[in-house]
This record gives sequence, structure tokens and C-alpha cells, in this order.
Amino acid sequence: MLRDHCGVVGVAAESQVSNTIFNALRMLQHRGQESAGMAVHAHDTLIHKDMGLVHQVFNPTILEYLRGTVGIGHVRYSTTGGSSLENAQPIFVDTAEGQLALVHNGDLVNAQQLRDHYKTKGWAFTTTGDSEIIIRLLARYLADTHDMIRSIRTVMKEIKGSYSMVIMYNGKVYGVRDPYGIKPLVLGKIVDGHMVSSESVALDLLDGEVIRDVMPGEIVEVGAEIFKSSPGGAALSPAHCMFEWVYFARADSVLDTKLAYEVRRRIGKALARAAPVDADFVVPVPDSGRAHAIGYSYASGVPYAEGLMKNRYVDRTFIMPSQLSREMSIKLKLNPIRPVIEDKSIVLVDDSIVRGTTMRQIVQLLFKFGAKEVHIRVGSPPIIAPCYFGVDIKHRKYFIANGRSVEEIREILGATSLRYITVDELVEAIELPYDHLCLGCVTGEYPLPIPGEKTRFQARLDSFRQE
Amino acid sequence: MLRDHCGVVGVAAESQVSNTIFNALRMLQHRGQESAGMAVHAHDTLIHKDMGLVHQVFNPTILEYLRGTVGIGHVRYSTTGGSSLENAQPIFVDTAEGQLALVHNGDLVNAQQLRDHYKTKGWAFTTTGDSEIIIRLLARYLADTHDMIRSIRTVMKEIKGSYSMVIMYNGKVYGVRDPYGIKPLVLGKIVDGHMVSSESVALDLLDGEVIRDVMPGEIVEVGAEIFKSSPGGAALSPAHCMFEWVYFARADSVLDTKLAYEVRRRIGKALARAAPVDADFVVPVPDSGRAHAIGYSYASGVPYAEGLMKNRYVDRTFIMPSQLSREMSIKLKLNPIRPVIEDKSIVLVDDSIVRGTTMRQIVQLLFKFGAKEVHIRVGSPPIIAPCYFGVDIKHRKYFIANGRSVEEIREILGATSLRYITVDELVEAIELPYDHLCLGCVTGEYPLPIPGEKTRFQARLDSFRQE
Amino acid sequence: MLRDHCGVVGVAAESQVSNTIFNALRMLQHRGQESAGMAVHAHDTLIHKDMGLVHQVFNPTILEYLRGTVGIGHVRYSTTGGSSLENAQPIFVDTAEGQLALVHNGDLVNAQQLRDHYKTKGWAFTTTGDSEIIIRLLARYLADTHDMIRSIRTVMKEIKGSYSMVIMYNGKVYGVRDPYGIKPLVLGKIVDGHMVSSESVALDLLDGEVIRDVMPGEIVEVGAEIFKSSPGGAALSPAHCMFEWVYFARADSVLDTKLAYEVRRRIGKALARAAPVDADFVVPVPDSGRAHAIGYSYASGVPYAEGLMKNRYVDRTFIMPSQLSREMSIKLKLNPIRPVIEDKSIVLVDDSIVRGTTMRQIVQLLFKFGAKEVHIRVGSPPIIAPCYFGVDIKHRKYFIANGRSVEEIREILGATSLRYITVDELVEAIELPYDHLCLGCVTGEYPLPIPGEKTRFQARLDSFRQE
Amino acid sequence: MLRDHCGVVGVAAESQVSNTIFNALRMLQHRGQESAGMAVHAHDTLIHKDMGLVHQVFNPTILEYLRGTVGIGHVRYSTTGGSSLENAQPIFVDTAEGQLALVHNGDLVNAQQLRDHYKTKGWAFTTTGDSEIIIRLLARYLADTHDMIRSIRTVMKEIKGSYSMVIMYNGKVYGVRDPYGIKPLVLGKIVDGHMVSSESVALDLLDGEVIRDVMPGEIVEVGAEIFKSSPGGAALSPAHCMFEWVYFARADSVLDTKLAYEVRRRIGKALARAAPVDADFVVPVPDSGRAHAIGYSYASGVPYAEGLMKNRYVDRTFIMPSQLSREMSIKLKLNPIRPVIEDKSIVLVDDSIVRGTTMRQIVQLLFKFGAKEVHIRVGSPPIIAPCYFGVDIKHRKYFIANGRSVEEIREILGATSLRYITVDELVEAIELPYDHLCLGCVTGEYPLPIPGEKTRFQARLDSFRQE
Repeated sequence: MLRDHCGVVGVAAESQVSNTIFNALRMLQHRGQESAGMAVHAHDTLIHKDMGLVHQVFNPTILEYLRGTVGIGHVRYSTTGGSSLENAQPIFVDTAEGQLALVHNGDLVNAQQLRDHYKTKGWAFTTTGDSEIIIRLLARYLADTHDMIRSIRTVMKEIKGSYSMVIMYNGKVYGVRDPYGIKPLVLGKIVDGHMVSSESVALDLLDGEVIRDVMPGEIVEVGAEIFKSSPGGAALSPAHCMFEWVYFARADSVLDTKLAYEVRRRIGKALARAAPVDADFVVPVPDSGRAHAIGYSYASGVPYAEGLMKNRYVDRTFIMPSQLSREMSIKLKLNPIRPVIEDKSIVLVDDSIVRGTTMRQIVQLLFKFGAKEVHIRVGSPPIIAPCYFGVDIKHRKYFIANGRSVEEIREILGATSLRYITVDELVEAIELPYDHLCLGCVTGEYPLPIPGEKTRFQARLDSFRQE
Repeated sequence: MLRDHCGVVGVAAESQVSNTIFNALRMLQHRGQESAGMAVHAHDTLIHKDMGLVHQVFNPTILEYLRGTVGIGHVRYSTTGGSSLENAQPIFVDTAEGQLALVHNGDLVNAQQLRDHYKTKGWAFTTTGDSEIIIRLLARYLADTHDMIRSIRTVMKEIKGSYSMVIMYNGKVYGVRDPYGIKPLVLGKIVDGHMVSSESVALDLLDGEVIRDVMPGEIVEVGAEIFKSSPGGAALSPAHCMFEWVYFARADSVLDTKLAYEVRRRIGKALARAAPVDADFVVPVPDSGRAHAIGYSYASGVPYAEGLMKNRYVDRTFIMPSQLSREMSIKLKLNPIRPVIEDKSIVLVDDSIVRGTTMRQIVQLLFKFGAKEVHIRVGSPPIIAPCYFGVDIKHRKYFIANGRSVEEIREILGATSLRYITVDELVEAIELPYDHLCLGCVTGEYPLPIPGEKTRFQARLDSFRQE
Repeated sequence: MLRDHCGVVGVAAESQVSNTIFNALRMLQHRGQESAGMAVHAHDTLIHKDMGLVHQVFNPTILEYLRGTVGIGHVRYSTTGGSSLENAQPIFVDTAEGQLALVHNGDLVNAQQLRDHYKTKGWAFTTTGDSEIIIRLLARYLADTHDMIRSIRTVMKEIKGSYSMVIMYNGKVYGVRDPYGIKPLVLGKIVDGHMVSSESVALDLLDGEVIRDVMPGEIVEVGAEIFKSSPGGAALSPAHCMFEWVYFARADSVLDTKLAYEVRRRIGKALARAAPVDADFVVPVPDSGRAHAIGYSYASGVPYAEGLMKNRYVDRTFIMPSQLSREMSIKLKLNPIRPVIEDKSIVLVDDSIVRGTTMRQIVQLLFKFGAKEVHIRVGSPPIIAPCYFGVDIKHRKYFIANGRSVEEIREILGATSLRYITVDELVEAIELPYDHLCLGCVTGEYPLPIPGEKTRFQARLDSFRQE
Repeated sequence: MLRDHCGVVGVAAESQVSNTIFNALRMLQHRGQESAGMAVHAHDTLIHKDMGLVHQVFNPTILEYLRGTVGIGHVRYSTTGGSSLENAQPIFVDTAEGQLALVHNGDLVNAQQLRDHYKTKGWAFTTTGDSEIIIRLLARYLADTHDMIRSIRTVMKEIKGSYSMVIMYNGKVYGVRDPYGIKPLVLGKIVDGHMVSSESVALDLLDGEVIRDVMPGEIVEVGAEIFKSSPGGAALSPAHCMFEWVYFARADSVLDTKLAYEVRRRIGKALARAAPVDADFVVPVPDSGRAHAIGYSYASGVPYAEGLMKNRYVDRTFIMPSQLSREMSIKLKLNPIRPVIEDKSIVLVDDSIVRGTTMRQIVQLLFKFGAKEVHIRVGSPPIIAPCYFGVDIKHRKYFIANGRSVEEIREILGATSLRYITVDELVEAIELPYDHLCLGCVTGEYPLPIPGEKTRFQARLDSFRQE
């Protein structure tokens, strides 16, 4: 399963914001289950963060303690391996200019260079995360300029990569999106204030309204009554991560004006048109493939059916490995519903295939339960290159599509047929220009320079040359 | 939300059974999240039980400790209010005839009478649950007869109500189902033994096979190599709880030969035929209405769409009540997906309506998000009478259908139209005879005598007389 | 270290008693750290019990819930091996005559016989503890007689062994002590009611006053305004456990009119007179030998010094066994204070020696730190026989004094000299007649018949015959 | 009760050190119960720290993970109010010169000035503790000099106050003591390496030997085979905190060559000589007054007795405040043993009196239990001035001795007589020169300049002038 990094939120209002942030974080919980945190500004900066789900980390006493009319919040994804409270956010620094707190979602590609550079200047880092680099650069430029907007701008010139971040400083909240707008960040109005949030669903809950997405390279100062926009240096064209629509964001979130649910349905429809099958049922891999499958069914007329039953209590649970064969392990999570499968020809739909291990087990299971045919349809193109911007697809050698043709993959998966959506079909389904998306992991062409990889500009140049 | 009581499992095998029972219980987890427990027979009876989910209660050390080739297991539902380890099962007694352990699913209707009766005979009860009554009666008759089958039979004559239970005694496992077969119990073959289980999904996981349902009034002695059936006194006709198919059981479970998923789809189809709407989308209330909605879509041709996004992390979570308005509370759980709702005519499908509170909020939410029409279709008939057999629908005054016409209910819910499935349509969808079902809560006619209520026999007699 | 079983308390007052019982239990905490529990009588019997220390098991919310003007409480000792909430007290039964709850301290010697006997009568026991036997016998005779005092009396004829117990029934509290008064139980007056308690310190805390000890074989009905005494059948002479004064009870407790601290000091004095040493310091093994050592110093004129420093944080702590050599393990608990030890002749005083393992390590440590001489003085006679009444000294083979002369023991311990107090000196120090004490573990002669052991009557008869 | 800050340890050895540090920390547990932590150097710096006691924070898995042959450890005291993992140590920084980790015990008096100064230089601090200031200064000078000893020296010139610290850098361990040696730090040999530790007891446990105290202003580089000493700038005369001997250190610790137990006994003797009483018993306030009382008894011939029984289970426990009157609260902790008190004249000995609240309650209790006379003898002089070096005596207004004569204090306490040890007697008991001690809190004269307070040099100058 793919994992993104985090969810962020920032609020300025006329009343206490801790409950607002708490509820917003609950709506962003799908973006991170490892830790949660919040900082508010009162006379001082008050912070609480801990390992656990939002409703485990906070309680009424803590929310009452976090009294302030501006605040920021964060949820962090669940890592394999040990927990690490040290990397929980918000991160905080105390400087001559006052106190800063920061939450961010994304990955810097030049973090190590910056770290090394400033270490040679005598800087000592007390954590190992990107956030400390950002906040200390901010603090440094703030000491020079005494001007937060200018400081943010300077930092934005220095750091490279994906970041949607929210900064709290002297009672003010700043939402910042990287020059490419790789990670989402949306600006909205709530009853007595304004909010920036990773996804629009936080606003839905609070009866708020989306004003607009924060623009790539934009700095938004968020106040209770007004918000002010400052340019931070946008790229020539944006590069929104396509996986937000395909998988990460909640289906009910609107990101850069496109509702995830609709994108997923359009993907399904495109797959139906491009790779139709005369099947008995369209079956999603729950929950990730559901919207795509509904779209496929709609466009193809093949009836939609839930043929795999998901065990709600196995999500994110430690499964004692030695106790279960691989087949039992997959059945514990996804058990076939026999009459949908037996003697049936199935279109099996999921959002993506990274390593292919689970998909292969599902196919085996379906055939074992008597499926006549299993036609796999995938909502994203083959993943052939790593993500450098925060998505947990890092090593080419693990990708099933690495150096293999679709036919070879089909054979490994054991499927009757296999069709990925193409890059062009995906772009069309998102309904944004090709140039406005980050498609690095499916094209190997990246919006910004990565050592050892091509930029999309270089790739295009190459293609012109070849022509 | 409706709640059933428990899940039970019993295994006899040629190898250690604790891991088998552990995995079976994980598949039955949806039947109870409050506590879990297991007893195995070695030289002695070993028991472990605690509050929590199956994977929280057990760990490899405990499973290793529970060494035995026969065993029984239990999951118990989550009550509102305080936790109570005392009522966790298995329950155990030590008698002159040896040690007995018991797990059971169901409710006795004459528990208080039995308790009072035996208290006057000098019995002292150390718990407040039904299980102690059953196991002490068993112990008593065993002392007289030294014969477990005879003792079970005598107890079955004495206790009235619903019970699917598993007894472990002297290295043997007995599965017992009440004379009406109200609660499910299925018998199956696993790799080196036999199993009885509340639902067939436990067998699926273990690569086992369903042999057949335990019959109403049947006692099955479960051995590793063979199983023996003894009559315990069946009723004239069974009375399987219809809600197992409609809601309780996992969609992939086969109960009394009928797959829950198929019953739900047939219900949806029946509703589509009986109450068609020229709508834009069929939208389920997730997760409970999904299969019914798919059936409705299939039969009507109205496209299926997921118009309400469920927050996975709010299930069974304490929501701080004062923090959220009622509308926010429902949105935190179920947020509308705008393009499926706005300016659309919607068929909203759920499995049942008890109090109607949540359904009313959903309807309001849909209209607020711009729905043109909301047509509610319900997978079970109006609930007009209490359940005395273990389902948490107890008090007529709370039922929205109590003393109200469908039109009146529709008005309260604020829906454009409202159609419940009828009792006859439901029976037809289950594909079992009317007389083989317990329909007490939707007809007020019960399979066995309940003080102050009619039996189905009396009801039929009355209807003959009226004719 | 020796371990007794439990502490009990019962209160009847004109106001709520849960806080009173809570505080009394905190004063009895030294009698048991495994679990704590309380039952109060309101309209119904309310019970709360759990694993842990008193202040961990109860909190203000629970104490507020336990509203009642009569109640009983219990602390239970820490067993090696697994915890077992099932054996936590109070135990409760529901009968035709009403609800009973019981707490008790002691061990029945005929528990197994009673269990077997009643099992043959068809009784089924739901726990494995003595308490269930007692309470179910009570319930049985209550059903026959409808009279609690008569029922208690009948039970007292049937059960053999040590028991100080408190029963709550129909809003009344009964304190009962076995015919020999083996375990302590004291009756006192508190501000608006009466209390029975294992030790007088509970009354001290509550500003109460000791009225008197509950007599051997006495039944005391405890009311808010008055208390009533009924005979339950006393033995010819009492047999108070001598270890209560020597070790178990708090030094500030008065048991059967004798203050533990004074008894311990007199023991020390007796040892000083009987086995004087021209030493530099008298050093206690903290905390258990402190009062005895002070007495020794007082009578001998040898200065008292604390020569072993106790690590407060190692009490009852899991020590990772592989990490520490035996010597390190003892130093972690008890580190020598060099100038008190080096080149010094030491009188080392402790309350008792059971296995001798720790004492041997301490002696080695003292010599390693340069002690010239180590003279051990022990506050109880050699332990040569098991305790059948609840003290954790069960198996002769583990006793260092089993079949060995004092000289042989001295050699094993590596001490310069070794003097146990004699039985006669101990009896004199307690200031009660020999015949009023249980000295089973140090004489092998028991107050009541134990299969395979002599009674003190038989022993005396034998000695007459030999003379 | 007084509270010091912390305990520190550093080890370099030829084998894995995590178990060694774990055991050393258990011996230093009395110096801090809030949190514990450890860092070891392998290829990388591995750190584990958490809230809780040493044996709660570490387990075999974590100790196995912490593989390294050099390491440092820390225990931190329990603060009132909220817990704060952020301030747990070791603290860590990553710099161009490598990784540093640091533990420290003490308080800087110019922390705020340093913080403010470096904030104006653009530094951003990610914590609020002194440790971050020290470690970042170290990192800074290391960047300039590439030489740890020189860097430490530069930092020592910049920071003012008390600090015994241990630094780990590039596989080396450095023990550093402030120029006055205010906090203790001892150097020792263990089986295959060397150790620095706050107290010598850690060496005792490990069968190690004290080499010597780290000198005031000394930097010791600790290696497995050798250790190297470098001067860091000692003050003209040391200023060891007298409270280490009087109260903080374990009685079995040797600090700056003086054993705490002996100092305490000499204090008791001095009090006996200076303020004799013809009393019945010398009674300590357990556990803090015990050694002083033994000394008093020894010198006076008045018998030592334990007249107050300490409840072991109330230490550091939350006591529900509303449940207990003040008198009950003190009795729950310290219950009088009647025959030692009643009709007796008592010498009551404790180490110190800060606010006097508890002492006053004890005196009342003793009189209530029938004491004829209560003569208080106190092991430290009246506390009249704050500690700026880490001891939790901060505000003059709370000191009972603030602006009051001894007679006035006696009256408030309700004692028959009251005698503090004098400063001169205390100095004599410690057996170090007056000029080698920090006596700030009992003289108001401090070893180094504190804004608003006198230095001992100024005080002496003043006294010369007055003469």
C-alpha cells in the first residue's frame, strides 16, 4: 500500500481554535496515523504532540489547555519499525524574533546538502528531520530581515522539493506551498476565521467553504478576518502529484479544483473504453479500487459487485507472521464472496500496483475460488521510477513494472488480462494539463532536477531531438 | 446501529488448536469487539480472556501457553457503559465429573425464572450472566447422569431462548444449537480436525470446508477425526434470525445455506422492482447498505455511486460530545461527495432503520448539499416489536416505526419517498420459508412464548379466526 | 522474603464508606500488592476490584460510584507467576436470600476435601479459590436457616484452617475470626461507625480507636451505632501466628494487644542477652531487621548503625536476570556502607531466615567489604516445618534449617557466629502464653490436625510419654 | 522535600556498555525519577529516553539495540506539574564535526543571558533547557577548532553555574565538572573500562573502584584503557554543595572523599554535643533523618528508636487531596508508634527544614499521641536564601526561616526546643574547609556572582570592613 507523509492544518479565528484544529485533524487522519500534534499561540506557544491517532493524542483537558485563537496541527503517517516521537510535529524554535512553530507535508530533495552546508557553518541540528532545516533557516532570515514574508521567500529559494507547510509566528499563521504545488493545500473560510488545510474535507466538516487552493509558490497569511497573499516564487508550470487524486486523498476531497472521486470514476470509465471485457462482474479491491471500479461498471455496463470482503479489524494491525500462510494472510484481509467469483469472468480493479505481491495473491485466490477469468484494470500507469517528493515508492528494484513489459507483469500476476491506464488517459481523467502534474513515478521525468534523473524539460528536449 | 451478541468457535484437531481458534476469532471479530477469550484442554483446562480486540487479547506467548488439541473461543460485543470482564467468556466450572467450559451466543428468555427457581433451591450465583445458569445446570445433570449428551438434552428442555453454544468437557467439544436455530452455527472440516463456528468465514480463512449447518436442536460432538450428531429436541419449524442475513453476518458468510451477500442483493433487487425511482444515482449508507444498493442498481439500471464518504477512524471511537454539533458529528462519520449529490435525485439505501436519528441527519445533509430528491429504500421491514433473543432492539418507544405509518415516518425523516421491504419480499429474498425465520421484531409474532407477546402460532390462529 | 496472604476491612457507618475503606486499604497495602477490591451495599451490591495497588485500582470517580454506608475491602499479595483477576476479592454471590459479598485472609486446610465433597453433591465451582467454598456454604445454610449468624456458625464447623473474614449481607457487616485466631482481626470505633480490620493501623489513620481484637471463634456483627458479638465456637486455646509480630504486620500495629514494634525490640534484647558479642556495630538487614536490631543495640550497648543501604526503587521490581551476577544483584538492593563494615566486627540482625540464599550473599558481601566478623542474629527460630495457614513457606526441602544443625547452617551462611532466637525466648518476647501461639513452622507442632503432621496436643502427649 | 536535578554517567569499555549504564542508572535512581535516557556510540549515535523509572524505560530489547562500547546515561528528577519528554536527556546534535550527545546535572545562572545573546545572533533554540545551550556552544566551537578539549574549555569560560556533565563525541566520553565542583562527579575503574558517575555507588554495584573525584574545572577524557585529564579552568577554591552530604546523595556514596553516611552521623553527634537533651528516645523522620539520628543517639547515649512508621506505598503517589484531612495525610505517610511516643520525651531528628509544613504536622501528631516533649534537631542550618544551582529551594517567602529567629520558628513548629546545626558545626562535620563548600542557601553568600546576591568574597570583604 502506498503511503504519503502527512496532513497539515492552520487556523486563525476570533474564538479558541483547538477544537477546530482537533476536528480538522480527524478529517485528515487518513493522511497519517503515527502521531498527531498541535501548537497554538497564546501569550506563549503551547504545544502538544504524541504518538497515536488524533482522538488518542488529544482529550478535553488538553484541548482546554491549548487556548489560543491561532494554531496549527499535524498528522503523521505510520512508519514501519520503531516509533519516533522526535519526528512528530509541530516543531518549535525560540529566537530573538520570537517563537516559531511549523508543520509540513513533503520531502526536500536537497535536505542533505543543506544540512551539510550549514553544518560546515557550525550549525548543530538536534533532530534528523527536514522540518528543523526549514524552521532554522526561517529563524535565521527572520533575524536578518525581521520580516516573515521575506524570510519565507528566501527559504523558498533555498529549499528544493515538495512542501505544503503552515507556520505560526507571533500570532500569525502562514500557509506556504512549494513552487510546483506538489502537495495539496487549500484555503477556506470557517465561521469566524480562515483555515488552510491539506484537504478540503476538513472545511466540509466545519461547515466552512473552500475559497481556493493555495497557489504553487504562494504564501498566504491567514488572519481571522482577512487573508493576504504574497508571491513566493512559482515555477513555470505546476506539478501536482497525480497520486493524490488516484489514491491518497479522500474521495470527497477537492484538490486543485478536481474532486478525487470524480477523477477516479473517470479513470474507471477510461479503462472501460480502452480495455473492455465481456465479463460477469466488475469487482474492486476494497477500499482503494472502489471508485475506479464504479466508473468502469458505469461505462461498460458490466455489473458492479463487491466480490472481496474486507476485514475491518485487520487494517494496520500487527499480524503474527509465523502463524499464517501467505494465502491465509490475504484471506484474513480480503475474503472472496463465492457467487460473485465462482464460474465468473471478473474485471478486478485497483488504484495502482507497486510490488504486485498482494495483487498476485488476490488473483490466485480468485482462481482458487473458481473464477473463470480475472482481468486486472489498474487506475495508474506502471510505476517505473522512484518518488523523491514524499511518497513511499523509493527503490526501482522492488517495482514489478521495473524493466518488464505489461505482458510479463500479467504473467507474474497470473491474470487473464492486464491493462494499466496510460499516462495520457490518466492526464485526461484528471482534467488538468499534462504540464501541471507530477508524473515522475510513471514517466521517470521530474518537475525539478534530481541527481541521476531527468527533468520533464530535459525529457521533452530529448524527445524533440529524437524527432 | 444494531448489535448482536457474540461469536463462538470450537475446534478438535490432531495438533495444537490455539492458533486456529485465534485466527477463527479474528474472522468473527465483527460479532464482538468488547472482549475475547479462549479455553483449551490439556491435562487441565487453560483459559485466557480479557477486554479488547482478538489481536490485543492474545499474543504468541499466550497462544503458546494455551497448548491443547481441543478448544473453544469467544468474542463479545461492545456494550455502552462500563466494561465488564466478569461477563467475558469462556465461563468455567470445576465439578466432580471434571471441568467444563462454555461459550455461547444468544439470550435466554427464562433466565430470571431459572435463576429465581434455583436460588430458592439454595443455589448461589457468582456472576450475573446467562452462561453461569447454563453451565451450572449442565454440571448438575452431569453429576446425576455422568453423560454429557443426556445432560445437554435435559438442559435444553429447561432453558428457553436463543443459544448457539460450544461446550468443552473432558477433552471433547460439543456444538449445540437451540431448537429453533435462532443464532447461526456451522460445522466444518479443517485440515486435521473439525470446527463449529458462528459463521462460515472462519472456515474460509482456514482453508476448511463447510460440512453443514448445525441443525436446530442438534448436539454435535466434535472430534478430530469424526463428529457425531445427537438430537437435542428440535422445534416443529426453525426460526432463524432474519437479521443475520440482512445485517449481522459478514457478507461472505453462508448461514443456513444462504449467502448473506446474495440475500442482500436480492433485497435490493426486490426494492428496485417494487419501488422504482427515476433517479440519478443509487447511494448506499456505507458500509451496511452497500450490498443492498448494488442489488437495487442492478435491477433498476440506476447507476450505483458512493455518495457518502465514511471516515474509517471514527468507527467505535469516543466522540467528545460537546465539541460537535449534530450535523458535524454525522459529517465526521459520513461526508457527502458533492457531484453525486448536488442537483441529483438519489436513492439512498440502508439495511434497516431502528430509531431513525442517523437516517434523518443524513437526509438533511444530502438536501443541504443540494440533493433534489432523496428516496429512502430500506432492506428490512419496519421494526415494530422488541427482540428477546439477543439483538439490541429492546424498547418499543424508541422505534421510529412504533405506531406510525410509513408516510408519517417519511415525514419525520424528511425524505422524498420511503419504501421498506415488506415481510413477504424479505422472506422471498432470503429464499427460506416464512415459517423457518424469526421475524419477531418486524411482525410482533415470536417463535416461542414470550410473556405479553404473541407466538407466531397464536398469530396465525388469530388470523384464521378473523378470516 | 516471607509473604502473607491478604488484608481485610469492613465498615458500617452513618455516612458513605468508600473513602474510609480506600484509606484503610492504603494502610493495609503492605499485606498485599497484587490486587485490591471493595464492595458496598446500596440498593444493590456494588463491587470494584482490579490488579494493582490501592491507589491505582481506585480513583475519585470509582469511589463516588461505590456509594453505600456499609462496605468491605481487600488487598491481596503479589504472587510469583501470572496475575489472576479471578482470585481478586471481594467475591460475590446472588441467592434467594439476597446478595452476599466476602473478603478473607487465610488458608483452609480442608479446602480440597470440601471441594471434592460438594462436587460429588453436584456443586460446580466457577473459581479455584477458598473464598468461593466459604461463600457458597454460607449461601447454602442461609437458604436453610434464613439466619446469618447461624449460617456462619455452621460454616465455621465445616471449614478448618485460618481465616479472618468480613462478610457483607443485606446491609450488614460481619467480622469473623477462626477458632484459633490465627490471622489478626481487630474491632474499632471510627467517627460515625465501626470497623473491623486486619491491623490497627487502619484505625490510627482514621482517627479511630481500637475497641478490642475480635476473639478467636467470634462473630461480630458490625453496625454504625452498635456492634453485637456472637460465639462461633472458639478452640480451647488460641494460636495466633507468631510471624505477624516478627515480620508481617506493620511495626506500628497492635495485634492481640501486643505492639509489633515492641515485640521486635524485645526479641532483639533477648538475642543480645542470650548471645552477646563484643562487636563494633549492630547492623540491621533493612527494612525487616531494623526494630530487632535496635533492641539488640539497646540491650547490648553495641552501637546501632545502618551498614547496608537499601535501594528503594528495586522493591518488587523485575530485575533482568541475565544482566547481573548474583553479587551485583544483592548490591543493587543492599549496598554496604564501608566505614560501618571495614575492619569492623558486625552483629547482623534480620527477622528470619527461610532459604538462606540472600543472607549468604549479604555475609559474603560484608566480608568482601572488609568486615572482620559477621555475627548473625535472627528474630525467629529456625524454620523447620511448612505453614498450612497461608504463609508462603511450603516445602521443607527449601528450608536451610531442614535437617541441619545451627552450626551447619552457620557454615553454609559463612558467618562468624549464628544465633537464632529460641522458641521460648520468642514466646517470652511476644508476652503471650506458649499455648496461645501458632508455632507450627518452628516446632512442627500445629494447633489443629494436619494430615501427616502432629498437633501440639499430640506433641505434648508424646513428650509426657517420653518423660 | 528537597529535590536535586539529575544523575549522570559515562562509560568507555572494551565490551558493550548498555547494561553497565543501565545498572549504574539504577543506582542513581534516587537522583531522578521523572525520566531516564541513554546514548551509545556505534557507527552512529543511538539514543533511547522516555518518561519513567530506569527499569520502566529500558528492557532487554532496547538494551540490545543500544550496542556500543562507549555511552552516557541520565536520570532526571520528578517535577511537579506536567511531564515533559522534551527535556529528557541525553540531548543530541548532528554537526559538520560529527555527532555529539550530552547529559548534565546542574543549573546555569547565565542561561537566559546566553540564550538572549545567541538569539540576537540568529540562533534558534528547539528546546527550553540549559542543555541545548551547552551542546550548541560546544558544536560551534568545535566547528572553529576541530578540537573537543579546546571547545569544552571555551564553553566553560562562557557558561556560569553548576554543571557536572558527560559528553559523548566521536566514540569518546568526556566528564566535565564546573570550576567550583558544585555538583558531584566521580571517576572510577570498572572491569574493562572507565566510568564517570554522579555518585560512587554506581561503581560499587559494578565491582568497580573509585579512582578519584573529577576535580573542579577538570575535563577528563574517559577511555577504555586510559583516561586523560585536561584543565578546564578551576576556581580559586571549590564550592561543593553541602546538601549532597546532608540529604541528596545516597548514604553509601563518597563525594569529594567524604562518605555521606559519616557526615550525617557526625552532624548528629555535633547536635548531641551542642544541644543535648535528657530525653527518652532519639527518633528520626524516616528515611531522611535516620543517619543523623543514629549519630545523635551515639554521642548522647539517648536510645535510638523508630517512632514514626513510614508507609512505603505512599512515596511519590498521588494522594487524592479532598479525601484526607491534613492530619490523616501525614499519618498515611508517617504513623506514630505509640510506646516510643506516649509519655516520652523525644528528640526528633531530620536533615533539614524548608517550609516547615510537614515538620509542624509531625510535631502536632507526636503531641496528640502523648509525647511529653518534642525536641527538634536539624541536620542543616536554617535555609535563608535561594539556591541558584539546581536545588529546588527558590523563593525566600516560602522559607520558614526567612526573617524569623529560631525561637519564632520553634513556636510555629510547636516544638519544646529547636536546634539547627550551625554553619560552623556543619562545616566541621563535613571535614572540608569552609571555603570548599557552597553554603549559599544557609549563608546568603554564593561562590560566584548572582545578580542581587553577595558573593562569599564580597561577604568576607564586608566582614573585614566591619571589623
